[in-house]
Amino acid sequence: MDLQYGLELVGTFVFAISGALAIREREHDMFGAGFTGFITAIGGGTLRDILLDSYPLVWVDDVWFLYAILVGVLAAFTFPKFLSELRRTFFLFDTLGIAFFTVLGVEKALNLGMRPEIAAIMGMFSAVMGGVIRDTLTNEIPILFRKEVYASACLAGAIVYLILNSYEVSRDINLLISIAVIIAIRMLSMKYKISLPRLD
Amino acid sequence: MDLQYGLELVGTFVFAISGALAIREREHDMFGAGFTGFITAIGGGTLRDILLDSYPLVWVDDVWFLYAILVGVLAAFTFPKFLSELRRTFFLFDTLGIAFFTVLGVEKALNLGMRPEIAAIMGMFSAVMGGVIRDTLTNEIPILFRKEVYASACLAGAIVYLILNSYEVSRDINLLISIAVIIAIRMLSMKYKISLPRLD
Amino acid sequence: MDLQYGLELVGTFVFAISGALAIREREHDMFGAGFTGFITAIGGGTLRDILLDSYPLVWVDDVWFLYAILVGVLAAFTFPKFLSELRRTFFLFDTLGIAFFTVLGVEKALNLGMRPEIAAIMGMFSAVMGGVIRDTLTNEIPILFRKEVYASACLAGAIVYLILNSYEVSRDINLLISIAVIIAIRMLSMKYKISLPRLD
Repeated sequence: MDLQYGLELVGTFVFAISGALAIREREHDMFGAGFTGFITAIGGGTLRDILLDSYPLVWVDDVWFLYAILVGVLAAFTFPKFLSELRRTFFLFDTLGIAFFTVLGVEKALNLGMRPEIAAIMGMFSAVMGGVIRDTLTNEIPILFRKEVYASACLAGAIVYLILNSYEVSRDINLLISIAVIIAIRMLSMKYKISLPRLD
Repeated sequence: MDLQYGLELVGTFVFAISGALAIREREHDMFGAGFTGFITAIGGGTLRDILLDSYPLVWVDDVWFLYAILVGVLAAFTFPKFLSELRRTFFLFDTLGIAFFTVLGVEKALNLGMRPEIAAIMGMFSAVMGGVIRDTLTNEIPILFRKEVYASACLAGAIVYLILNSYEVSRDINLLISIAVIIAIRMLSMKYKISLPRLD
Repeated sequence: MDLQYGLELVGTFVFAISGALAIREREHDMFGAGFTGFITAIGGGTLRDILLDSYPLVWVDDVWFLYAILVGVLAAFTFPKFLSELRRTFFLFDTLGIAFFTVLGVEKALNLGMRPEIAAIMGMFSAVMGGVIRDTLTNEIPILFRKEVYASACLAGAIVYLILNSYEVSRDINLLISIAVIIAIRMLSMKYKISLPRLD
Protein backbone atom coordinates (compact mmCIF):
# COMPACT_ATOMS: atom_id res chain seq x y z
CA MET A 1 0.00 0.00 0.00
CA ASP A 2 2.87 2.39 0.76
CA LEU A 3 4.40 1.72 -2.64
CA GLN A 4 1.08 2.38 -4.32
CA TYR A 5 0.58 5.66 -2.43
CA GLY A 6 4.09 6.76 -3.40
CA LEU A 7 3.39 5.93 -7.04
CA GLU A 8 0.16 7.92 -6.95
CA LEU A 9 2.04 10.96 -5.67
CA VAL A 10 4.72 10.55 -8.32
CA GLY A 11 2.07 10.12 -11.03
CA THR A 12 0.34 13.30 -9.85
CA PHE A 13 3.67 15.15 -9.87
CA VAL A 14 4.42 14.03 -13.45
CA PHE A 15 0.94 14.96 -14.69
CA ALA A 16 1.33 18.42 -13.12
CA ILE A 17 4.64 18.97 -14.93
CA SER A 18 3.28 17.86 -18.29
CA GLY A 19 0.17 19.97 -17.77
CA ALA A 20 2.18 23.09 -16.94
CA LEU A 21 4.53 22.53 -19.86
CA ALA A 22 1.69 21.80 -22.30
CA ILE A 23 0.85 25.47 -22.54
CA ARG A 24 4.40 26.76 -22.48
CA GLU A 25 4.40 27.88 -26.11
CA ARG A 26 1.22 29.82 -25.67
CA GLU A 27 0.49 33.26 -24.25
CA HIS A 28 0.03 32.13 -20.69
CA ASP A 29 1.66 33.47 -17.61
CA MET A 30 2.97 31.45 -14.70
CA PHE A 31 -0.35 31.42 -12.90
CA GLY A 32 -2.10 30.04 -15.98
CA ALA A 33 0.56 27.36 -16.32
CA GLY A 34 0.20 26.39 -12.67
CA PHE A 35 -3.56 26.29 -12.95
CA THR A 36 -3.28 24.08 -16.03
CA GLY A 37 -0.89 21.74 -14.25
CA PHE A 38 -3.32 21.49 -11.36
CA ILE A 39 -6.32 20.72 -13.61
CA THR A 40 -4.36 18.13 -15.60
CA ALA A 41 -3.27 16.34 -12.44
CA ILE A 42 -6.59 16.24 -10.62
CA GLY A 43 -9.16 16.43 -13.44
CA GLY A 44 -9.55 12.75 -14.30
CA GLY A 45 -9.79 11.40 -10.76
CA THR A 46 -12.09 14.25 -9.75
CA LEU A 47 -14.52 13.57 -12.58
CA ARG A 48 -14.48 9.85 -11.76
CA ASP A 49 -15.23 10.49 -8.09
CA ILE A 50 -18.01 12.98 -8.85
CA LEU A 51 -19.65 10.47 -11.22
CA LEU A 52 -19.35 7.74 -8.59
CA ASP A 53 -20.41 10.03 -5.72
CA SER A 54 -17.21 9.10 -3.90
CA TYR A 55 -16.43 11.86 -1.41
CA PRO A 56 -14.30 13.45 -0.10
CA LEU A 57 -12.29 13.86 -3.30
CA VAL A 58 -8.79 12.41 -3.02
CA TRP A 59 -6.94 15.76 -3.22
CA VAL A 60 -9.47 17.50 -0.97
CA ASP A 61 -8.95 14.86 1.69
CA ASP A 62 -5.19 14.36 1.42
CA VAL A 63 -3.23 17.56 1.05
CA TRP A 64 -0.05 15.76 -0.06
CA PHE A 65 -1.49 15.53 -3.56
CA LEU A 66 -1.68 19.32 -3.64
CA TYR A 67 1.96 19.55 -2.61
CA ALA A 68 2.98 17.00 -5.26
CA ILE A 69 1.26 19.24 -7.81
CA LEU A 70 2.88 22.37 -6.40
CA VAL A 71 6.33 20.83 -6.62
CA GLY A 72 5.62 19.66 -10.18
CA VAL A 73 4.47 23.11 -11.23
CA LEU A 74 7.48 24.78 -9.58
CA ALA A 75 9.77 22.31 -11.37
CA ALA A 76 8.12 23.25 -14.67
CA PHE A 77 8.67 26.94 -13.82
CA THR A 78 12.29 26.47 -12.83
CA PHE A 79 13.51 24.11 -15.56
CA PRO A 80 11.12 24.55 -18.47
CA LYS A 81 13.73 24.08 -21.18
CA PHE A 82 15.44 21.16 -19.52
CA LEU A 83 12.11 19.41 -18.92
CA SER A 84 10.89 20.09 -22.44
CA GLU A 85 14.00 18.54 -23.88
CA LEU A 86 13.19 15.41 -21.92
CA ARG A 87 10.21 14.94 -24.20
CA ARG A 88 11.01 11.30 -24.88
CA THR A 89 11.47 10.56 -21.19
CA PHE A 90 8.22 12.35 -20.50
CA PHE A 91 6.41 10.30 -23.06
CA LEU A 92 7.53 7.24 -21.11
CA PHE A 93 6.43 8.72 -17.80
CA ASP A 94 3.12 9.90 -19.20
CA THR A 95 2.43 6.46 -20.67
CA LEU A 96 3.31 4.83 -17.37
CA GLY A 97 1.12 7.39 -15.61
CA ILE A 98 -2.00 6.81 -17.69
CA ALA A 99 -1.54 3.03 -17.46
CA PHE A 100 -1.22 3.18 -13.69
CA PHE A 101 -4.13 5.56 -13.16
CA THR A 102 -6.36 3.51 -15.46
CA VAL A 103 -5.91 0.40 -13.36
CA LEU A 104 -6.31 2.27 -10.07
CA GLY A 105 -9.52 3.83 -11.40
CA VAL A 106 -10.88 0.42 -12.37
CA GLU A 107 -10.09 -0.93 -8.90
CA LYS A 108 -11.67 2.02 -7.14
CA ALA A 109 -14.92 1.61 -9.09
CA LEU A 110 -14.99 -2.15 -8.41
CA ASN A 111 -14.39 -1.52 -4.71
CA LEU A 112 -17.37 0.84 -4.72
CA GLY A 113 -19.48 -2.04 -6.04
CA MET A 114 -19.72 -0.92 -9.67
CA ARG A 115 -20.28 -3.31 -12.56
CA PRO A 116 -17.28 -4.08 -14.78
CA GLU A 117 -18.62 -2.01 -17.70
CA ILE A 118 -18.75 1.06 -15.46
CA ALA A 119 -15.35 0.26 -13.93
CA ALA A 120 -13.78 0.17 -17.40
CA ILE A 121 -15.16 3.60 -18.25
CA MET A 122 -14.08 5.00 -14.87
CA GLY A 123 -10.56 3.63 -15.32
CA MET A 124 -10.23 5.30 -18.70
CA PHE A 125 -11.73 8.56 -17.38
CA SER A 126 -9.26 8.63 -14.46
CA ALA A 127 -6.37 8.48 -16.88
CA VAL A 128 -7.43 10.74 -19.74
CA MET A 129 -10.04 13.25 -18.60
CA GLY A 130 -7.55 15.54 -16.85
CA GLY A 131 -5.90 16.12 -20.22
CA VAL A 132 -9.27 16.48 -21.93
CA ILE A 133 -10.42 19.16 -19.47
CA ARG A 134 -7.06 20.95 -19.79
CA ASP A 135 -7.31 20.96 -23.58
CA THR A 136 -10.91 22.12 -23.51
CA LEU A 137 -10.07 25.03 -21.19
CA THR A 138 -7.14 26.12 -23.32
CA ASN A 139 -9.10 25.82 -26.59
CA GLU A 140 -7.05 22.91 -27.91
CA ILE A 141 -8.58 19.92 -29.67
CA PRO A 142 -8.57 17.40 -26.78
CA ILE A 143 -5.82 14.82 -26.85
CA LEU A 144 -8.52 12.18 -27.08
CA PHE A 145 -9.41 13.30 -30.58
CA ARG A 146 -5.82 13.83 -31.70
CA LYS A 147 -3.70 10.91 -30.55
CA GLU A 148 -5.64 8.04 -31.94
CA VAL A 149 -4.39 5.29 -29.68
CA TYR A 150 -4.44 6.99 -26.31
CA ALA A 151 -7.73 6.64 -24.49
CA SER A 152 -8.44 3.45 -26.41
CA ALA A 153 -5.21 1.91 -25.06
CA CYS A 154 -6.45 2.70 -21.54
CA LEU A 155 -9.83 1.19 -22.27
CA ALA A 156 -8.18 -1.96 -23.64
CA GLY A 157 -5.99 -2.26 -20.51
CA ALA A 158 -9.02 -1.76 -18.30
CA ILE A 159 -10.84 -4.57 -20.08
CA VAL A 160 -7.81 -6.87 -19.75
CA TYR A 161 -7.70 -6.14 -16.01
CA LEU A 162 -11.40 -6.92 -15.65
CA ILE A 163 -11.14 -10.20 -17.58
CA LEU A 164 -8.15 -11.40 -15.57
CA ASN A 165 -9.89 -10.25 -12.39
CA SER A 166 -12.94 -12.33 -13.26
CA TYR A 167 -10.63 -15.38 -13.50
CA GLU A 168 -9.29 -14.49 -10.05
CA VAL A 169 -5.75 -13.83 -11.20
CA SER A 170 -3.83 -12.38 -8.24
CA ARG A 171 -3.87 -8.61 -8.03
CA ASP A 172 -0.11 -8.06 -8.43
CA ILE A 173 0.12 -10.15 -11.58
CA ASN A 174 -3.03 -8.57 -12.97
CA LEU A 175 -1.68 -5.05 -12.33
CA LEU A 176 1.56 -5.88 -14.12
CA ILE A 177 -0.15 -7.46 -17.13
CA SER A 178 -2.80 -4.81 -17.66
CA ILE A 179 -0.35 -1.93 -17.21
CA ALA A 180 1.98 -3.66 -19.68
CA VAL A 181 -0.85 -4.01 -22.19
CA ILE A 182 -1.60 -0.28 -22.09
CA ILE A 183 2.07 0.64 -22.44
CA ALA A 184 2.62 -1.84 -25.27
CA ILE A 185 -0.41 -0.67 -27.25
CA ARG A 186 0.58 2.97 -26.95
CA MET A 187 4.26 2.40 -27.69
CA LEU A 188 3.64 0.15 -30.69
CA SER A 189 1.00 2.42 -32.13
CA MET A 190 3.39 5.39 -31.85
CA LYS A 191 6.31 3.48 -33.31
CA TYR A 192 4.40 2.09 -36.29
CA LYS A 193 2.06 5.07 -36.57
CA ILE A 194 -0.96 2.84 -36.23
CA SER A 195 -4.26 4.60 -35.76
CA LEU A 196 -7.85 3.53 -35.53
CA PRO A 197 -9.87 3.82 -38.74
CA ARG A 198 -11.76 7.03 -39.25
CA LEU A 199 -15.48 7.19 -39.75
CA ASP A 200 -16.26 7.99 -43.37
CA MET B 1 -43.64 2.59 -16.94
CA ASP B 2 -42.37 -0.08 -19.33
CA LEU B 3 -43.22 2.10 -22.32
CA GLN B 4 -41.39 5.03 -20.71
CA TYR B 5 -38.31 2.92 -20.02
CA GLY B 6 -38.30 1.68 -23.61
CA LEU B 7 -38.57 5.25 -24.89
CA GLU B 8 -35.67 6.34 -22.67
CA LEU B 9 -33.48 3.62 -24.15
CA VAL B 10 -34.53 4.55 -27.70
CA GLY B 11 -33.87 8.23 -26.99
CA THR B 12 -30.42 7.38 -25.63
CA PHE B 13 -29.72 5.27 -28.74
CA VAL B 14 -30.74 8.11 -31.07
CA PHE B 15 -28.65 10.67 -29.16
CA ALA B 16 -25.63 8.35 -29.38
CA ILE B 17 -26.02 8.04 -33.16
CA SER B 18 -26.37 11.79 -33.68
CA GLY B 19 -23.40 12.44 -31.38
CA ALA B 20 -21.18 9.98 -33.23
CA LEU B 21 -22.21 11.35 -36.62
CA ALA B 22 -21.81 14.96 -35.52
CA ILE B 23 -18.06 14.73 -35.78
CA ARG B 24 -17.96 12.58 -38.90
CA GLU B 25 -16.65 15.30 -41.12
CA ARG B 26 -13.83 16.10 -38.76
CA GLU B 27 -10.48 14.49 -38.18
CA HIS B 28 -11.65 12.02 -35.59
CA ASP B 29 -11.15 8.32 -35.50
CA MET B 30 -13.71 5.73 -34.47
CA PHE B 31 -12.82 5.94 -30.80
CA GLY B 32 -13.33 9.71 -30.81
CA ALA B 33 -16.68 9.29 -32.53
CA GLY B 34 -17.77 6.67 -30.01
CA PHE B 35 -16.65 8.84 -27.11
CA THR B 36 -18.60 11.76 -28.56
CA GLY B 37 -21.70 9.62 -28.98
CA PHE B 38 -21.41 8.55 -25.35
CA ILE B 39 -20.99 12.10 -24.04
CA THR B 40 -23.91 13.38 -26.13
CA ALA B 41 -26.19 10.63 -24.86
CA ILE B 42 -25.38 10.84 -21.14
CA GLY B 43 -24.17 14.42 -20.69
CA GLY B 44 -27.43 16.22 -20.05
CA GLY B 45 -28.90 13.72 -17.61
CA THR B 46 -25.58 13.36 -15.82
CA LEU B 47 -25.22 17.11 -15.29
CA ARG B 48 -28.84 17.30 -14.05
CA ASP B 49 -28.28 14.48 -11.55
CA ILE B 50 -24.98 15.93 -10.29
CA LEU B 51 -26.65 19.32 -9.74
CA LEU B 52 -29.54 17.63 -7.91
CA ASP B 53 -27.26 15.25 -5.97
CA SER B 54 -29.31 12.34 -7.33
CA TYR B 55 -27.13 9.23 -7.17
CA PRO B 56 -26.39 6.68 -8.51
CA LEU B 57 -26.41 8.23 -11.99
CA VAL B 58 -28.90 6.56 -14.33
CA TRP B 59 -26.31 5.00 -16.67
CA VAL B 60 -24.04 3.99 -13.78
CA ASP B 61 -26.92 2.16 -12.13
CA ASP B 62 -28.56 0.59 -15.19
CA VAL B 63 -26.12 -0.85 -17.68
CA TRP B 64 -28.74 -1.13 -20.44
CA PHE B 65 -28.23 2.55 -21.18
CA LEU B 66 -24.58 1.81 -21.93
CA TYR B 67 -25.59 -0.93 -24.32
CA ALA B 68 -28.12 1.34 -26.04
CA ILE B 69 -25.27 3.81 -26.56
CA LEU B 70 -22.92 1.08 -27.79
CA VAL B 71 -25.45 -0.13 -30.34
CA GLY B 72 -26.05 3.46 -31.47
CA VAL B 73 -22.33 4.09 -31.91
CA LEU B 74 -21.84 0.79 -33.76
CA ALA B 75 -24.76 1.68 -36.04
CA ALA B 76 -23.09 5.03 -36.76
CA PHE B 77 -19.83 3.20 -37.53
CA THR B 78 -21.50 0.63 -39.78
CA PHE B 79 -23.90 2.81 -41.77
CA PRO B 80 -22.51 6.35 -41.55
CA LYS B 81 -23.55 7.36 -45.05
CA PHE B 82 -26.99 5.83 -44.85
CA LEU B 83 -27.64 7.45 -41.48
CA SER B 84 -26.32 10.81 -42.58
CA GLU B 85 -28.66 10.79 -45.55
CA LEU B 86 -31.52 10.34 -43.12
CA ARG B 87 -30.83 13.83 -41.86
CA ARG B 88 -34.43 14.89 -42.08
CA THR B 89 -35.58 11.76 -40.25
CA PHE B 90 -32.92 12.44 -37.65
CA PHE B 91 -34.08 15.95 -37.15
CA LEU B 92 -37.47 14.50 -36.32
CA PHE B 93 -36.00 11.97 -33.91
CA ASP B 94 -33.75 14.52 -32.30
CA THR B 95 -36.66 16.90 -31.80
CA LEU B 96 -38.74 14.10 -30.33
CA GLY B 97 -35.78 13.17 -28.12
CA ILE B 98 -35.17 16.60 -26.66
CA ALA B 99 -38.90 17.08 -26.07
CA PHE B 100 -39.17 13.75 -24.27
CA PHE B 101 -36.03 14.22 -22.16
CA THR B 102 -37.08 17.75 -21.20
CA VAL B 103 -40.34 16.54 -19.71
CA LEU B 104 -38.71 13.56 -17.99
CA GLY B 105 -36.11 15.90 -16.49
CA VAL B 106 -38.82 18.21 -15.17
CA GLU B 107 -40.64 15.25 -13.60
CA LYS B 108 -37.48 13.90 -12.01
CA ALA B 109 -36.70 17.25 -10.40
CA LEU B 110 -40.28 17.62 -9.12
CA ASN B 111 -40.17 14.09 -7.70
CA LEU B 112 -37.00 15.06 -5.84
CA GLY B 113 -38.94 17.90 -4.23
CA MET B 114 -37.54 20.77 -6.28
CA ARG B 115 -39.38 24.01 -6.90
CA PRO B 116 -40.90 24.50 -10.37
CA GLU B 117 -38.29 27.11 -11.36
CA ILE B 118 -35.52 24.60 -10.70
CA ALA B 119 -37.46 21.80 -12.41
CA ALA B 120 -37.77 23.89 -15.58
CA ILE B 121 -34.01 24.49 -15.70
CA MET B 122 -33.27 20.82 -15.00
CA GLY B 123 -35.65 19.71 -17.77
CA MET B 124 -33.92 21.96 -20.28
CA PHE B 125 -30.47 20.87 -19.07
CA SER B 126 -31.41 17.17 -19.45
CA ALA B 127 -32.27 17.76 -23.09
CA VAL B 128 -29.58 20.12 -24.30
CA MET B 129 -26.47 19.91 -22.14
CA GLY B 130 -25.22 16.65 -23.68
CA GLY B 131 -24.95 18.46 -27.00
CA VAL B 132 -23.41 21.51 -25.32
CA ILE B 133 -20.70 19.41 -23.64
CA ARG B 134 -20.06 17.55 -26.91
CA ASP B 135 -19.67 20.81 -28.82
CA THR B 136 -17.43 22.31 -26.14
CA LEU B 137 -15.11 19.27 -26.17
CA THR B 138 -14.87 19.30 -29.96
CA ASN B 139 -14.28 23.06 -30.11
CA GLU B 140 -17.55 23.82 -31.86
CA ILE B 141 -19.78 26.75 -30.94
CA PRO B 142 -22.38 24.95 -28.78
CA ILE B 143 -25.69 24.21 -30.44
CA LEU B 144 -27.32 26.39 -27.82
CA PHE B 145 -25.70 29.48 -29.30
CA ARG B 146 -26.26 28.48 -32.90
CA LYS B 147 -29.78 27.15 -33.34
CA GLU B 148 -31.76 29.97 -31.88
CA VAL B 149 -34.94 28.12 -31.03
CA TYR B 150 -33.57 24.94 -29.52
CA ALA B 151 -33.01 25.19 -25.79
CA SER B 152 -35.64 27.90 -25.60
CA ALA B 153 -38.21 25.49 -27.09
CA CYS B 154 -37.35 23.04 -24.32
CA LEU B 155 -37.67 25.71 -21.67
CA ALA B 156 -41.07 26.74 -23.08
CA GLY B 157 -42.26 23.13 -23.02
CA ALA B 158 -41.01 22.70 -19.47
CA ILE B 159 -42.96 25.77 -18.38
CA VAL B 160 -46.13 24.50 -20.11
CA TYR B 161 -45.75 21.18 -18.29
CA LEU B 162 -45.35 22.94 -14.95
CA ILE B 163 -48.38 25.18 -15.50
CA LEU B 164 -50.62 22.27 -16.51
CA ASN B 165 -49.24 20.24 -13.62
CA SER B 166 -50.15 23.01 -11.18
CA TYR B 167 -53.75 22.76 -12.49
CA GLU B 168 -53.60 19.01 -11.86
CA VAL B 169 -54.02 18.02 -15.49
CA SER B 170 -53.49 14.24 -15.73
CA ARG B 171 -49.93 13.17 -16.40
CA ASP B 172 -50.54 11.49 -19.77
CA ILE B 173 -52.36 14.49 -21.23
CA ASN B 174 -49.75 16.85 -19.81
CA LEU B 175 -46.90 14.82 -21.34
CA LEU B 176 -48.56 14.86 -24.75
CA ILE B 177 -49.29 18.58 -24.68
CA SER B 178 -45.91 19.75 -23.44
CA ILE B 179 -43.99 17.43 -25.80
CA ALA B 180 -46.18 18.70 -28.66
CA VAL B 181 -45.41 22.31 -27.68
CA ILE B 182 -41.65 21.72 -27.87
CA ILE B 183 -41.92 19.93 -31.21
CA ALA B 184 -44.22 22.57 -32.66
CA ILE B 185 -42.01 25.48 -31.59
CA ARG B 186 -38.91 23.86 -33.01
CA MET B 187 -40.54 22.74 -36.26
CA LEU B 188 -42.22 26.07 -36.93
CA SER B 189 -39.12 28.09 -36.12
CA MET B 190 -37.11 25.94 -38.53
CA LYS B 191 -39.72 26.11 -41.27
CA TYR B 192 -40.19 29.87 -41.06
CA LYS B 193 -36.63 30.60 -40.01
CA ILE B 194 -37.81 32.37 -36.90
CA SER B 195 -35.14 33.22 -34.38
CA LEU B 196 -35.05 35.12 -31.14
CA PRO B 197 -33.89 38.72 -31.33
CA ARG B 198 -30.21 39.37 -30.80
CA LEU B 199 -28.85 41.63 -28.13
CA ASP B 200 -27.57 44.83 -29.68
CA MET C 1 -26.06 38.11 8.14
CA ASP C 2 -28.82 40.04 6.37
CA LEU C 3 -26.25 42.41 4.92
CA GLN C 4 -24.19 39.48 3.69
CA TYR C 5 -27.22 37.83 2.07
CA GLY C 6 -28.11 41.09 0.34
CA LEU C 7 -24.55 41.45 -0.93
CA GLU C 8 -24.61 37.90 -2.27
CA LEU C 9 -27.76 38.66 -4.24
CA VAL C 10 -26.28 41.90 -5.58
CA GLY C 11 -23.07 40.10 -6.54
CA THR C 12 -25.05 37.44 -8.39
CA PHE C 13 -27.04 40.14 -10.18
CA VAL C 14 -23.84 41.93 -11.29
CA PHE C 15 -22.22 38.68 -12.48
CA ALA C 16 -25.35 37.89 -14.52
CA ILE C 17 -25.23 41.30 -16.21
CA SER C 18 -21.54 41.03 -17.05
CA GLY C 19 -22.04 37.46 -18.31
CA ALA C 20 -24.90 38.44 -20.57
CA LEU C 21 -23.03 41.47 -21.91
CA ALA C 22 -19.83 39.50 -22.44
CA ILE C 23 -21.23 37.87 -25.55
CA ARG C 24 -23.05 40.91 -26.84
CA GLU C 25 -20.74 41.49 -29.77
CA ARG C 26 -21.03 37.90 -30.91
CA GLU C 27 -23.67 36.09 -32.93
CA HIS C 28 -25.80 35.10 -29.98
CA ASP C 29 -29.48 35.64 -29.51
CA MET C 30 -31.19 36.69 -26.33
CA PHE C 31 -31.55 33.16 -25.04
CA GLY C 32 -27.83 32.52 -25.46
CA ALA C 33 -27.06 35.77 -23.64
CA GLY C 34 -29.38 34.83 -20.79
CA PHE C 35 -27.89 31.36 -20.56
CA THR C 36 -24.42 32.86 -20.46
CA GLY C 37 -25.42 35.28 -17.73
CA PHE C 38 -26.82 32.39 -15.71
CA ILE C 39 -23.68 30.24 -16.12
CA THR C 40 -21.41 33.15 -15.21
CA ALA C 41 -23.37 33.90 -12.07
CA ILE C 42 -23.72 30.37 -10.71
CA GLY C 43 -20.75 28.51 -12.23
CA GLY C 44 -18.08 29.22 -9.64
CA GLY C 45 -20.15 28.52 -6.55
CA THR C 46 -21.69 25.45 -8.15
CA LEU C 47 -18.29 23.94 -8.98
CA ARG C 48 -17.07 24.69 -5.43
CA ASP C 49 -20.10 23.01 -3.88
CA ILE C 50 -19.87 19.95 -6.15
CA LEU C 51 -16.19 19.54 -5.26
CA LEU C 52 -17.01 19.88 -1.57
CA ASP C 53 -20.14 17.69 -1.79
CA SER C 54 -22.12 20.54 -0.25
CA TYR C 55 -25.76 20.04 -1.22
CA PRO C 56 -28.30 21.39 -1.97
CA LEU C 57 -26.57 23.91 -4.23
CA VAL C 58 -27.18 27.49 -3.15
CA TRP C 59 -29.29 28.49 -6.18
CA VAL C 60 -31.19 25.19 -6.18
CA ASP C 61 -32.15 25.73 -2.57
CA ASP C 62 -32.87 29.44 -2.59
CA VAL C 63 -34.81 30.62 -5.59
CA TRP C 64 -34.03 34.30 -4.95
CA PHE C 65 -30.66 33.79 -6.59
CA LEU C 66 -32.45 32.73 -9.78
CA TYR C 67 -34.54 35.88 -9.68
CA ALA C 68 -31.45 38.04 -9.10
CA ILE C 69 -29.98 36.45 -12.25
CA LEU C 70 -33.21 36.91 -14.20
CA VAL C 71 -33.37 40.59 -13.30
CA GLY C 72 -29.69 40.98 -14.24
CA VAL C 73 -30.24 39.32 -17.63
CA LEU C 74 -33.36 41.39 -18.30
CA ALA C 75 -31.41 44.54 -17.41
CA ALA C 76 -28.73 43.50 -19.89
CA PHE C 77 -31.42 42.95 -22.55
CA THR C 78 -33.15 46.24 -21.88
CA PHE C 79 -30.17 48.59 -21.52
CA PRO C 80 -27.27 46.87 -23.30
CA LYS C 81 -25.71 50.08 -24.61
CA PHE C 82 -26.11 52.01 -21.40
CA LEU C 83 -24.64 49.15 -19.35
CA SER C 84 -21.78 48.61 -21.78
CA GLU C 85 -20.85 52.25 -21.53
CA LEU C 86 -20.56 51.79 -17.80
CA ARG C 87 -17.56 49.57 -18.45
CA ARG C 88 -15.41 51.33 -15.89
CA THR C 89 -18.15 51.12 -13.27
CA PHE C 90 -18.58 47.47 -14.13
CA PHE C 91 -14.93 46.82 -13.70
CA LEU C 92 -15.28 48.19 -10.19
CA PHE C 93 -18.32 46.05 -9.47
CA ASP C 94 -16.74 42.96 -10.98
CA THR C 95 -13.61 43.46 -8.90
CA LEU C 96 -15.70 43.96 -5.79
CA GLY C 97 -17.71 40.86 -6.74
CA ILE C 98 -14.75 38.53 -7.19
CA ALA C 99 -13.17 39.82 -3.97
CA PHE C 100 -16.36 39.24 -2.01
CA PHE C 101 -17.08 35.79 -3.47
CA THR C 102 -13.48 34.70 -2.87
CA VAL C 103 -13.72 35.39 0.84
CA LEU C 104 -17.19 33.84 1.14
CA GLY C 105 -15.91 30.73 -0.63
CA VAL C 106 -12.98 30.47 1.75
CA GLU C 107 -15.30 30.78 4.73
CA LYS C 108 -17.72 28.18 3.38
CA ALA C 109 -14.92 25.65 2.90
CA LEU C 110 -13.53 26.33 6.39
CA ASN C 111 -17.01 25.92 7.88
CA LEU C 112 -17.25 22.53 6.15
CA GLY C 113 -14.06 21.53 7.97
CA MET C 114 -11.64 21.83 5.07
CA ARG C 115 -7.94 22.52 5.48
CA PRO C 116 -6.72 26.05 4.66
CA GLU C 117 -5.00 24.91 1.42
CA ILE C 118 -8.32 23.57 0.13
CA ALA C 119 -10.20 26.61 1.39
CA ALA C 120 -7.89 28.92 -0.59
CA ILE C 121 -8.51 26.99 -3.80
CA MET C 122 -12.25 26.90 -3.17
CA GLY C 123 -12.32 30.65 -2.56
CA MET C 124 -10.55 31.33 -5.83
CA PHE C 125 -12.78 28.84 -7.70
CA SER C 126 -15.96 30.50 -6.34
CA ALA C 127 -14.84 33.81 -7.76
CA VAL C 128 -13.37 32.92 -11.13
CA MET C 129 -14.71 29.59 -12.40
CA GLY C 130 -18.08 31.02 -13.52
CA GLY C 131 -16.19 33.19 -15.99
CA VAL C 132 -13.93 30.30 -16.97
CA ILE C 133 -16.91 28.03 -17.74
CA ARG C 134 -18.61 30.85 -19.67
CA ASP C 135 -15.49 31.45 -21.76
CA THR C 136 -15.00 27.74 -22.41
CA LEU C 137 -18.59 27.32 -23.60
CA THR C 138 -18.36 30.31 -25.90
CA ASN C 139 -14.97 29.28 -27.32
CA GLU C 140 -13.10 32.19 -25.80
CA ILE C 141 -9.71 31.85 -24.18
CA PRO C 142 -10.72 31.80 -20.49
CA ILE C 143 -10.25 35.04 -18.61
CA LEU C 144 -7.86 33.17 -16.34
CA PHE C 145 -5.35 32.83 -19.14
CA ARG C 146 -5.84 36.35 -20.46
CA LYS C 147 -5.96 38.80 -17.59
CA GLU C 148 -2.83 37.95 -15.81
CA VAL C 149 -3.62 39.28 -12.39
CA TYR C 150 -7.16 38.09 -11.93
CA ALA C 151 -7.39 34.66 -10.37
CA SER C 152 -4.02 35.19 -8.73
CA ALA C 153 -5.35 38.31 -6.98
CA CYS C 154 -8.16 36.17 -5.58
CA LEU C 155 -5.74 33.50 -4.46
CA ALA C 156 -3.58 36.14 -2.74
CA GLY C 157 -6.61 37.55 -0.93
CA ALA C 158 -7.69 34.07 0.13
CA ILE C 159 -4.26 33.44 1.61
CA VAL C 160 -4.33 36.77 3.47
CA TYR C 161 -7.74 35.86 4.91
CA LEU C 162 -6.46 32.46 6.06
CA ILE C 163 -3.34 33.93 7.67
CA LEU C 164 -5.29 36.59 9.56
CA ASN C 165 -7.88 33.97 10.51
CA SER C 166 -5.17 31.76 11.98
CA TYR C 167 -4.17 34.72 14.19
CA GLU C 168 -7.81 35.01 15.26
CA VAL C 169 -8.33 38.48 13.81
CA SER C 170 -12.05 39.29 14.10
CA ARG C 171 -14.11 38.29 11.09
CA ASP C 172 -15.27 41.80 10.10
CA ILE C 173 -11.76 43.21 10.08
CA ASN C 174 -10.45 40.17 8.25
CA LEU C 175 -13.15 40.46 5.57
CA LEU C 176 -12.33 44.12 5.01
CA ILE C 177 -8.57 43.56 4.79
CA SER C 178 -8.63 40.54 2.50
CA ILE C 179 -11.24 42.07 0.18
CA ALA C 180 -9.14 45.24 0.07
CA VAL C 181 -6.04 43.19 -0.81
CA ILE C 182 -7.79 41.59 -3.80
CA ILE C 183 -9.13 44.90 -5.04
CA ALA C 184 -5.78 46.65 -4.58
CA ILE C 185 -3.81 43.95 -6.42
CA ARG C 186 -6.21 43.94 -9.33
CA MET C 187 -6.50 47.73 -9.56
CA LEU C 188 -2.78 48.35 -9.32
CA SER C 189 -1.91 45.62 -11.82
CA MET C 190 -4.40 47.10 -14.31
CA LYS C 191 -3.21 50.65 -13.76
CA TYR C 192 0.48 49.84 -14.10
CA LYS C 193 -0.05 46.97 -16.57
CA ILE C 194 1.77 44.59 -14.28
CA SER C 195 1.54 40.95 -15.23
CA LEU C 196 3.07 37.77 -13.91
CA PRO C 197 6.12 36.48 -15.76
CA ARG C 198 5.51 34.02 -18.56
CA LEU C 199 7.01 30.58 -18.68
CA ASP C 200 9.73 30.44 -21.32
